Amino acid sequence: MPVTINSIREAHNRIKDFIHQTPVLTSHSLNRIVGMDLYFKCENFQKTGSFKIRGASNAVLNLSEEQIAKGVITHSSGNHGAALAQAALWRNIPSYVVAPHNSPDVKKQALETYKADVTFSDVTLESRVNETNKLINETGAVFIHPYDNDTVISGAGTCCLELMESVQNPDVIMAPIGGGGLMSGTSIAAKALSPDIKIIGCEPELADDACISFKSGVLQGPKPVRTIADGLRTALSERTFGYIKQNVDHIETVSEEEIIAATKLVWHHLKIVIELSSSVPFAAAIKLKKQLAGKRVGIIFSGGNADLKYVTSLF
Amino acid sequence: MPVTINSIREAHNRIKDFIHQTPVLTSHSLNRIVGMDLYFKCENFQKTGSFKIRGASNAVLNLSEEQIAKGVITHSSGNHGAALAQAALWRNIPSYVVAPHNSPDVKKQALETYKADVTFSDVTLESRVNETNKLINETGAVFIHPYDNDTVISGAGTCCLELMESVQNPDVIMAPIGGGGLMSGTSIAAKALSPDIKIIGCEPELADDACISFKSGVLQGPKPVRTIADGLRTALSERTFGYIKQNVDHIETVSEEEIIAATKLVWHHLKIVIELSSSVPFAAAIKLKKQLAGKRVGIIFSGGNADLKYVTSLF
Repeated sequence: MPVTINSIREAHNRIKDFIHQTPVLTSHSLNRIVGMDLYFKCENFQKTGSFKIRGASNAVLNLSEEQIAKGVITHSSGNHGAALAQAALWRNIPSYVVAPHNSPDVKKQALETYKADVTFSDVTLESRVNETNKLINETGAVFIHPYDNDTVISGAGTCCLELMESVQNPDVIMAPIGGGGLMSGTSIAAKALSPDIKIIGCEPELADDACISFKSGVLQGPKPVRTIADGLRTALSERTFGYIKQNVDHIETVSEEEIIAATKLVWHHLKIVIELSSSVPFAAAIKLKKQLAGKRVGIIFSGGNADLKYVTSLF
Repeated sequence: MPVTINSIREAHNRIKDFIHQTPVLTSHSLNRIVGMDLYFKCENFQKTGSFKIRGASNAVLNLSEEQIAKGVITHSSGNHGAALAQAALWRNIPSYVVAPHNSPDVKKQALETYKADVTFSDVTLESRVNETNKLINETGAVFIHPYDNDTVISGAGTCCLELMESVQNPDVIMAPIGGGGLMSGTSIAAKALSPDIKIIGCEPELADDACISFKSGVLQGPKPVRTIADGLRTALSERTFGYIKQNVDHIETVSEEEIIAATKLVWHHLKIVIELSSSVPFAAAIKLKKQLAGKRVGIIFSGGNADLKYVTSLF
């Protein structure tokens, strides 16, 4: 079943007692600096520290006792793995996560906290997929893809549903693009509720596969990327590319320096901790300052699982 | 007029349209780690980044046009100075701040942001007082003491007033002690609203003048202190000592290591930025883990004006 505003509403009803309705923060000083009215949806305060719990819990809660008895499994650079493990704990079933060995420590620790059974793989997608398939055969666990899954995307869309209910008449919604799950759900929810709204997807220049796919109309495969925004290193799937082509108006890319500067502004002025991937849409808003002057701009901060020392060492 | 629950309520009515009603955050993971129900009143999200705007704005808004025409003046290690400057901007009058030359950069920048006319002094209290008196004579500005002032203390008490309205039946309230203004207002508000509540004042071991004064009954003068909790280096006055003797049940001190560990836990689990002075009561709660087990504990995070790189370098 494709993702629609109805599937997103259903997801919200299914998961709302398990997750936080996260706050929308504003800051006079940031509005003054950037010259627009900014509304920050703070998924850094979400359970497990990122929006990923929305999609993971929607997928896990949607399965019957029988379907799910042998557990769930995924491959993930971190946040989706922790989210899936937390959702599995809620249903008292095992969770298996295949993570690249170079995941940030803070994300490895989270997998431990939520009692995931972790297998480390090489960094290539091929190695992750092979390890995962081997484990599916061994355990009989149900595979929950981090984004190439309509139930996961419907869950991710609930974040923008809440944002649209909190902010009166936003002109623009901006969110980061990694695999495209958050962007798909966000854009479907926003356009359904406000057809004239502009949707801007935001990517690191060093992981600009979505931008190239969007402009060329041809889906780019994953490539080795080195951006500090570790949550955005994945590539779109056919499914998320389809949703994004249909609902997103523009994709903006930002440099590593712009990501760092935006992160510092947020920590300093909003007094909150967000991870580097989260800052990408705010960095894009700063870059698009002229075009967005005076607009009401909703921005999704996707998560807060930052290595504190590492991030501030970049400031 | 001494500080009472009535003067605190009057202060709240006077200032409430100028300040933020800051959120009270909770965290399942911190509750689990510490073994009590914690309610964090987040003055790091307050205007000017600390609770100080409550006292400063109460003092400034309480003066007539005539009284205040030549501006206001104070000496301050930082947060009170910025708060007074912001309150002065609201009334369109000049503000003069005498700050020790070794104030953290982040606090010096804030003084600039709020357009204070800043004079730097030596670090000794004597030098600060001399500079301030000289400036009072030159300018005719009204001196607003950072804590030895009942109007300022009544303003500071509004923070606990809001906390008591947000949390059902707290057993304990904990706040930091520097000059004792926040602790005085907090303890007066809490005891008036809930006479059986326990009030715990919290200090760095390296600035334990209030603890010694409290135990001995004899007010200690200021001494050179080197704690990283830069907002708590000041000593009690006769006035704040009087309020604290009457309303506080216990004063706990914590080591520099305990302050750092508590700060790291907050940044990591709550995903918020608080300054080192703010962590002192949470560090004390962790130290008093056994005595406070299972209790409902309200903790005031006094501010968020942290030098991000410096603080994480301590983690």
